[in-house]
Amino acid sequence: MAETEKDENGFEGLTCPTPISNYERVLLGHGGGGRLTNDLVRQVFVPLFDNKYLAAMDDQAVIEVNGARLAFTTDSFVVSPLFFPGGNVGSLAINGTINDLAVCGARPLYLSAALIMEEGLPMEELQRIGESMKGACEEAGVLLVTGDTKVVERGKGDGIFITTTGVGLVPDGVNVSSRNAKPGDKIILSGELGIHGIVIMSVREGIQFETQLESDSAPLHTLVEAILSVTRDVHCMRDPTRGGLASALNELASSSKVGMKIQEVDIPIPEEVEGACEILGLDPLVVANEGKLVAMVPPSTADEVVTKMRNHPLGREARVIGEVVEDHPGTVVMETSIGGLQIVQMPSGEQLPRIC
Amino acid sequence: MAETEKDENGFEGLTCPTPISNYERVLLGHGGGGRLTNDLVRQVFVPLFDNKYLAAMDDQAVIEVNGARLAFTTDSFVVSPLFFPGGNVGSLAINGTINDLAVCGARPLYLSAALIMEEGLPMEELQRIGESMKGACEEAGVLLVTGDTKVVERGKGDGIFITTTGVGLVPDGVNVSSRNAKPGDKIILSGELGIHGIVIMSVREGIQFETQLESDSAPLHTLVEAILSVTRDVHCMRDPTRGGLASALNELASSSKVGMKIQEVDIPIPEEVEGACEILGLDPLVVANEGKLVAMVPPSTADEVVTKMRNHPLGREARVIGEVVEDHPGTVVMETSIGGLQIVQMPSGEQLPRIC
Repeated sequence: MAETEKDENGFEGLTCPTPISNYERVLLGHGGGGRLTNDLVRQVFVPLFDNKYLAAMDDQAVIEVNGARLAFTTDSFVVSPLFFPGGNVGSLAINGTINDLAVCGARPLYLSAALIMEEGLPMEELQRIGESMKGACEEAGVLLVTGDTKVVERGKGDGIFITTTGVGLVPDGVNVSSRNAKPGDKIILSGELGIHGIVIMSVREGIQFETQLESDSAPLHTLVEAILSVTRDVHCMRDPTRGGLASALNELASSSKVGMKIQEVDIPIPEEVEGACEILGLDPLVVANEGKLVAMVPPSTADEVVTKMRNHPLGREARVIGEVVEDHPGTVVMETSIGGLQIVQMPSGEQLPRIC
Repeated sequence: MAETEKDENGFEGLTCPTPISNYERVLLGHGGGGRLTNDLVRQVFVPLFDNKYLAAMDDQAVIEVNGARLAFTTDSFVVSPLFFPGGNVGSLAINGTINDLAVCGARPLYLSAALIMEEGLPMEELQRIGESMKGACEEAGVLLVTGDTKVVERGKGDGIFITTTGVGLVPDGVNVSSRNAKPGDKIILSGELGIHGIVIMSVREGIQFETQLESDSAPLHTLVEAILSVTRDVHCMRDPTRGGLASALNELASSSKVGMKIQEVDIPIPEEVEGACEILGLDPLVVANEGKLVAMVPPSTADEVVTKMRNHPLGREARVIGEVVEDHPGTVVMETSIGGLQIVQMPSGEQLPRIC
């Protein structure tokens, strides 16, 4: 597709990727969870593995085995630094995969972990990371049942990379998918934005906060259970990690072929995140979150869902931040605090490498 | 445990690991699939994740979901170089995980792939690797249904690392486990040893062969189906990859608390492998294989199993190479071609890094 191509509605969005042949080499941004990652996945992998599961571009596949619907998801965690306020690569890797199961409504059951260690990794750090993985598994009530350990030479890795894969069971009647957002749906955000990404960037850039800001990494499956206890008719859910809320909403708008409209005043952003974003020149909407989710539900159940979420420790700040609209499919717009309307762009993914 | 401790039978084997606290840092050998890898997994991860699945130290876990027995396995592939005669990291990553499902008797169904790319990886190489993954999936009839892409900075990775995870269905009546070898069982090897490892080492060391030696990477699930069509009473199976046949047999002997006795004259080793091993100072029994399996079956069915395997393209050289014995549990001995008896040691894992 040509770079200037627009979709039938005249919008340049995910429907208008940069031809992958324009890139001679893989760029850091191809792993950033934004437009470049989308280009790569949609143009290289989706055409090769031509099946409905991968083509859905969800963060997990729902497969059928012996009559049961299983959620199946994998993620590599390459966060740098390995240790940060509020967690480390170990707990992040467990919670991240639990959350990719949870946001399709699945009950997380079993995890695997594959470790790629760099020669010279202090054994004490590995032990701490392992203990953190164990703690996260216990907190979430999942079992880590199989794994692999590889070691690469010094300078061919970076401490440790952890790939976790999860299997969960999708309850009957639950059909959450990135393609299911419907005009009229309310868009609910579970809490404050930008914390994990700013914590990581702050450690890298040496920014100090007056209060200790800690990563919001946490397992979301019980919050999802709370939502599903109100209604099984949840259309979309996603945890806005790499690429932030901007990337998550753009992907969902594109997959569901709907527009979205959010209100800036309704989006909770901690003061420390606002401040750090100003220093770093970042938009809080593109900063990675952990332990947060965005859900799209029919308007009739939205209030009750929000109330239920607020009774959960991870949903105290839950609120409706906007709605799904028929107009401008594939595009997300935001009513700004001063009353204007701006397009929420899909980030390129280049600004925040190795955030998870 | 002290380094010099012996088990109740006086054998120093897997029951006598080096205390992990002796290592201040992770060594290359901790990823080599030999004694060091065992030390790491048994002393760091098994105690942390205290569940029957991980403690079994199989290459896969068999989990129960909704009444079905699912095999679940993960492996990171960090082979260097990425491309080699007979394949590349892509096909290797697909076949490797298919085989870890197959050797517990499971029918492979779904795979995930998580890619950790180094910034600067040529897009054309990524495309070739992707096509090779696709080809391997099609050949084996499995679906790659979900994935992840991450990118790390130049010098923080090495081209591409691929972690594949697989889910398969274990048929009723099949109970293959590393703990199930019984005295009297025949040990069957499916083909010639040492090919994959020697191909990789040869590319690295610039060794030329008169005939082009190609990696034996191949999916083993139809060979396993052939075996199971003779009898479901297969006790152990393993694909002797990292650490070679020596590592596989030692692990099985240790887990099953049995001894093993093999005959050197019955172990098929290609001339090129023999020659390269002499040049490189390697024992063919510790060199990695792909697309090969070792099975332990009751003596009554061994001949029929071998006959059936020989009718399969991947089992033409199948043969009985020894048997499981009551004596010296945890230890593997080999009757040499000149009539002596030698202990087949668990390799340390340091000699052949990044072979898969």
